[in-house]
Amino acid sequence: MQELNTKNFMPHLSIDCVIFGYQARELKVLISKFNFKGNFYGLPSGFILHTEGVDEAACRILKERTGIENIYLEQFKIFGEANRSNKEVFEYLLEDEQERKKIAEISDNELQWFRNRFISFGYYALVDINKVTPQKTDIDESMSWYSIHELPRLIMDHREMITTALDAMRLSLDKNIIVFNLLPEVFTMKEVQDLYETIFEQTYARNNFQKKILELNVLERLEKKYTGAQNKAPYLYRFKR
Amino acid sequence: MQELNTKNFMPHLSIDCVIFGYQARELKVLISKFNFKGNFYGLPSGFILHTEGVDEAACRILKERTGIENIYLEQFKIFGEANRSNKEVFEYLLEDEQERKKIAEISDNELQWFRNRFISFGYYALVDINKVTPQKTDIDESMSWYSIHELPRLIMDHREMITTALDAMRLSLDKNIIVFNLLPEVFTMKEVQDLYETIFEQTYARNNFQKKILELNVLERLEKKYTGAQNKAPYLYRFKR
Repeated sequence: MQELNTKNFMPHLSIDCVIFGYQARELKVLISKFNFKGNFYGLPSGFILHTEGVDEAACRILKERTGIENIYLEQFKIFGEANRSNKEVFEYLLEDEQERKKIAEISDNELQWFRNRFISFGYYALVDINKVTPQKTDIDESMSWYSIHELPRLIMDHREMITTALDAMRLSLDKNIIVFNLLPEVFTMKEVQDLYETIFEQTYARNNFQKKILELNVLERLEKKYTGAQNKAPYLYRFKR
Repeated sequence: MQELNTKNFMPHLSIDCVIFGYQARELKVLISKFNFKGNFYGLPSGFILHTEGVDEAACRILKERTGIENIYLEQFKIFGEANRSNKEVFEYLLEDEQERKKIAEISDNELQWFRNRFISFGYYALVDINKVTPQKTDIDESMSWYSIHELPRLIMDHREMITTALDAMRLSLDKNIIVFNLLPEVFTMKEVQDLYETIFEQTYARNNFQKKILELNVLERLEKKYTGAQNKAPYLYRFKR
């Protein structure tokens, strides 16, 4: 498989990407089933080159592992417990010469690098599933969307990462506008409400919700065209660029 | 000075603490003037032991450098540009044998450790200046509160760190309750409003503000005692534990 020269990467550091996808009022997350024995599932992850910035590394890893590019990744947490390591997973894989070859052509000396403590930087993004087609690499048996309510058992602390990313994303939404990237060019207030109800997993009173969203002052209401019909069509809005 | 065995610390990693202090409607930040030639000012900083978690390291560093303990530190950003390093500052200090001794008893071999790329983890906290007395260590000429509007020139990207921490803190406030730590046990709505106006640097209409805060549903209004006076005293509130 590919050559992974550990000397090129910063020791002790990794990046994990929690990619949320929104589709049909459901929130999903992108999970790899690894192409190894043992039914390992985990987030798209990777390491940081000595020559690249941390944010830059996150974008490269996401592109290399999933084919997704040009989206905004948000740092949300450092996972830095002293006893955090890949050891459990790697010991399992590395004891088998065949499986080991699948990870990378690495020397015995380089193996120690994987067994060390790893501090991981968590990044999340929110994408429109209809606009994004994830690809798998050689180390993935599959790279697929899973409902956040039906996740497989994940390696290490990856499930905690998803929960933490979800909290961070919810917290940022009231002040943030990335959520409007999930809507079409023009949209109704009902579509906005559906989106919020999905992400926050609660229902809102229609009038209150509309008032709250309009107060953000980021939407522009379009003129209704006179169609001669009963004119019951809802107002359309557009995000102010 | 103290012995700093770089082998005990994780390479390439540092922690910087942005400690905001609130006092008399003003927001200040804790800055060290380093005890070296050259008028260097910077945030309280340090490194991560191989044996400790990242959050744990942040608490230890804050305690060792400022004497402040038992406060909640919030991770707010990873500063990870590829060309980020202490080099400029350290080259200046290390060229002078006397100044070099002030940093630590370190060998020539260990010096390379300091010249490397450093990724820094930014943490912030918000404390009540009246309740906290920062102490300086041997490497500080002073450790003092500076108004966020009257900062000295800071080393490296420390000014950007303060700006970024301020943004993160403001963003979290609407959803978060750490701000109530800055108020006395019982307080008036005016005191809450003063605090918010200081932090967000804007004024709020009294009625709207009160409504917004009460909607957070974290405050308990206390019974007014009948004093026989004109009873014009404002309501007192207490934070629900």
